[in-house]
Amino acid sequence: MVAFGAIRSQSSTLQDSSSFLSTDTIIALTVFFALLCACIIIGHLLEENRWANESITALLLGLCAGGVVLLVSKFQSSHLLVFSEDLFFLYLLPPIIFNAGFQVKKKQFFKNFNTILLFGVFGTVISFCVISLGAFLLFKRIGISTLDVKDYLGVGAILSATDSVCTLQVLSQDETPFLYSIVFGEGVVNDATSIVLFYSVQELDFSNIDAGSALKLLWTFLYLFFTSTALGVSVGLISAYIIKTLYFGRRSTDREVALMMLMAYLSYMLAELLNLSGILTIFFCGIVMSHYTWHNVTESSRITTKHAFATISFIAETFIFLYVGMDALDIDKWKSSKANPGTSIAVSSTLFAMVLLGRAAFVFPIANIKNYFQRTESTKIGFRKQFIIWWAGLMRGAVTIALSYNQFAESEKTSTKDSALMITCTIIVVLFSTVVFGSITKPLIEAVLLRHSKPSGSDAADMPSLEDLRLSFLIENGESSEQGDNQPPPKRSRLGLLISHPTTTVHYYWRKFDDKFMRPVFGGRGFVPFVPGSPR
Amino acid sequence: MVAFGAIRSQSSTLQDSSSFLSTDTIIALTVFFALLCACIIIGHLLEENRWANESITALLLGLCAGGVVLLVSKFQSSHLLVFSEDLFFLYLLPPIIFNAGFQVKKKQFFKNFNTILLFGVFGTVISFCVISLGAFLLFKRIGISTLDVKDYLGVGAILSATDSVCTLQVLSQDETPFLYSIVFGEGVVNDATSIVLFYSVQELDFSNIDAGSALKLLWTFLYLFFTSTALGVSVGLISAYIIKTLYFGRRSTDREVALMMLMAYLSYMLAELLNLSGILTIFFCGIVMSHYTWHNVTESSRITTKHAFATISFIAETFIFLYVGMDALDIDKWKSSKANPGTSIAVSSTLFAMVLLGRAAFVFPIANIKNYFQRTESTKIGFRKQFIIWWAGLMRGAVTIALSYNQFAESEKTSTKDSALMITCTIIVVLFSTVVFGSITKPLIEAVLLRHSKPSGSDAADMPSLEDLRLSFLIENGESSEQGDNQPPPKRSRLGLLISHPTTTVHYYWRKFDDKFMRPVFGGRGFVPFVPGSPR
Repeated sequence: MVAFGAIRSQSSTLQDSSSFLSTDTIIALTVFFALLCACIIIGHLLEENRWANESITALLLGLCAGGVVLLVSKFQSSHLLVFSEDLFFLYLLPPIIFNAGFQVKKKQFFKNFNTILLFGVFGTVISFCVISLGAFLLFKRIGISTLDVKDYLGVGAILSATDSVCTLQVLSQDETPFLYSIVFGEGVVNDATSIVLFYSVQELDFSNIDAGSALKLLWTFLYLFFTSTALGVSVGLISAYIIKTLYFGRRSTDREVALMMLMAYLSYMLAELLNLSGILTIFFCGIVMSHYTWHNVTESSRITTKHAFATISFIAETFIFLYVGMDALDIDKWKSSKANPGTSIAVSSTLFAMVLLGRAAFVFPIANIKNYFQRTESTKIGFRKQFIIWWAGLMRGAVTIALSYNQFAESEKTSTKDSALMITCTIIVVLFSTVVFGSITKPLIEAVLLRHSKPSGSDAADMPSLEDLRLSFLIENGESSEQGDNQPPPKRSRLGLLISHPTTTVHYYWRKFDDKFMRPVFGGRGFVPFVPGSPR
Repeated sequence: MVAFGAIRSQSSTLQDSSSFLSTDTIIALTVFFALLCACIIIGHLLEENRWANESITALLLGLCAGGVVLLVSKFQSSHLLVFSEDLFFLYLLPPIIFNAGFQVKKKQFFKNFNTILLFGVFGTVISFCVISLGAFLLFKRIGISTLDVKDYLGVGAILSATDSVCTLQVLSQDETPFLYSIVFGEGVVNDATSIVLFYSVQELDFSNIDAGSALKLLWTFLYLFFTSTALGVSVGLISAYIIKTLYFGRRSTDREVALMMLMAYLSYMLAELLNLSGILTIFFCGIVMSHYTWHNVTESSRITTKHAFATISFIAETFIFLYVGMDALDIDKWKSSKANPGTSIAVSSTLFAMVLLGRAAFVFPIANIKNYFQRTESTKIGFRKQFIIWWAGLMRGAVTIALSYNQFAESEKTSTKDSALMITCTIIVVLFSTVVFGSITKPLIEAVLLRHSKPSGSDAADMPSLEDLRLSFLIENGESSEQGDNQPPPKRSRLGLLISHPTTTVHYYWRKFDDKFMRPVFGGRGFVPFVPGSPR
């Protein structure tokens, strides 16, 4: 009994003592990490299932966990961690966007660069206008009366931010490279555009509005786009130069990997410090790092960076969806909105209809305008593809929720009832769009596109011509093809190719410039000393 | 001019708007990440220098940066981030300790397991007693009068925590495997012991102290040691089983790596939740993961985990030293201590002398007692090695500072003057020991040990006999050697080996048990289906 007593007193002593950390933090982190593990395992088991994916698993698991926490805390609170914009914008979003830039197939991305810009910039602006206008016209009929013009424009910007994370889990880079690069590229540019729009709206002075305001907005956007890109490219090039010059590979893989990680993150923080778009900066930093820096490091570093960045991004994505699911049951917000279910459903449905309409209002017009200027049939975007582009961008995610909190959670208005309602309705839209569209998209693509792809022209229809062009240029210049293909390249006249493939021609001159000036300085494939045992 | 005006107004608008994050956080993070990059680059450039290493570079760079911040803020503050125990114990320490377990040479570690336990547990307790007693006897003469018995015992526990991070950068696992495994293993056990001691002291009821207290303390320690180890081993085995059963390798390296990372971290959080020692748990989880889980994943995952864990650990280490350097100039602490330089120097010197004495008081006796029980000359620890073991454990690091803050920063005593003095003096001891010992250790080892190693018996003198034993056992059992060595194994009698090498014999039976029961269930080298293109 003495020993037992000793154990008991000791363990109760330990209860308060043997940790530096507050028990709440530890419980929250333990549950969160256990849920993350569960998401990965369940996601893997469901992998063969065409309707499910990790995002939806995480979202539903988060909902269940939120429900359990709600029950355990006797309907006081559903969340373990408070939703923090800092957590999201400082630690979760940067690795996802960096990895996106790092793993993107650069050729496809730059080949469709003008289409991506059209969708990402003009498309987002059109969507923003449609949603704002729709909310302005329809909300008063539902009974929402306390929102002002700024709030309506805010709603437009908030719901224009598409969620690329879940989409990318559904689209395959290998099966549908064209669609992937369009939807993905649009997603990145869209994030930046909607965030810039959101803040521009918040800063607009509505008492003194004139034609100059639109011009200012445009100028701001162009300024942000080019400086952010330039910063990302610069940091990427500096990292390539440092690693090439010091040639860390001789000694330490860990240092190379650490330097790449730290400099990527540094580019994001620098952009935020200079009030640029961190998302655009770290995205282009990722592209430059994969083009130059990645080739300057050892083989182990290449494998490590490739998979480590993907893993960190994957964990961050799962974390976000888990969190969004858990956050959805936050009882305080539902209480303070005081709306009857009918109003909530009406507002959510209106918002969702506006999202559908806003996206349709730019995808089909822009695609058709682009088609009008295309000479060859193969580079045109068919209706089926347009439909998929429209559909794949309907999901809303963490950026939407973060912006929504920023707009409505800390507003010091007289009536916070409608603000709380806007937050809960945004969450409903995010949950509904992710679960429904996330699960339907994969089967839909299979049904609409892949089964009909052969008669109507493959998704990668214009890829061979790019390869042809490069080969014929190389042969004309007396260079040998890198890949020792067996198939003889078909001869075409250079002039004909120049006219029919302007983007490809830009790519050719970029390659020449790259080989002559960039790679000798910054390294890159074939421009670093050979290390034994290091293929590629 | 209009355009210029527009730019100006827009950029000032952006100044306040285009970021979600507070400017202070961004500046702090940007400077920190820039400094981390600088540490890696400068550390690399100084690599050939035998006196310097990354820890010292980070510490000095942190000091410089702290000085600059102090000047910029006009002597208001020297630090960018507030020292947070949460940051240290939740995010920086776990990856370092996990990586230590993951990369440790298991054979060496377990072969010297009893020596490690002797040094780590009894040694730390002896050191704790010597330092506490010394402080108690000497501080009153210097003029420190407001500390009570609890504070003196706290000082003993605080300064018993050695810093293994810097030591490991100085010692080489390949050149001096025996010393590395002793110093490193002692470091891990020592961290756990000193943290348990620290909290036991804080919870001791001095009004009601008896012989049972010591017994309770012993019981607590044993309980913590075995349960923490068991938890770490369990989580490691579960991870191995999950990955082996689901066999992620078919599809996704990223999922495997994510699961390993998350489960390792989960083991730490679970231990903290159950009030066990997270450090011990994650250390043994790392060992089990490297023994089983690591062999169940794809070749890419192996390379990725090996380097990614090392990289994260490396970044965390550099971060800690950078922070400690920056924190050292914290003007508030120096102001509130109000001590004249003479007192500071006297207290620091006393503490440092106690550290020297406390370590000498257990290294030499324990080593000689151990030598007394060794039968063969080759397994004895010579005086030169004893000296290096003593020397290599004199550095004090982040654990010391974290414990010191916990003890003295939030004390609600009548006189906080002496508490502040204790913090500043602890920082002086940490800085002095890291810079001086960190820079001298490498040349010292070369001078003392490596140049004399051949005549007095190599550091790895007993390694061949281990290999002999395994080979002769394997041959007796009719198994073929894994490595097709050309040298014929010398024949020895099994009984003789059993008597002369008890540890080795335990290792042999463990291997038999491992091959028969553990590996078929949990995977491991040679026990997972062959994947094409996956060597080892």
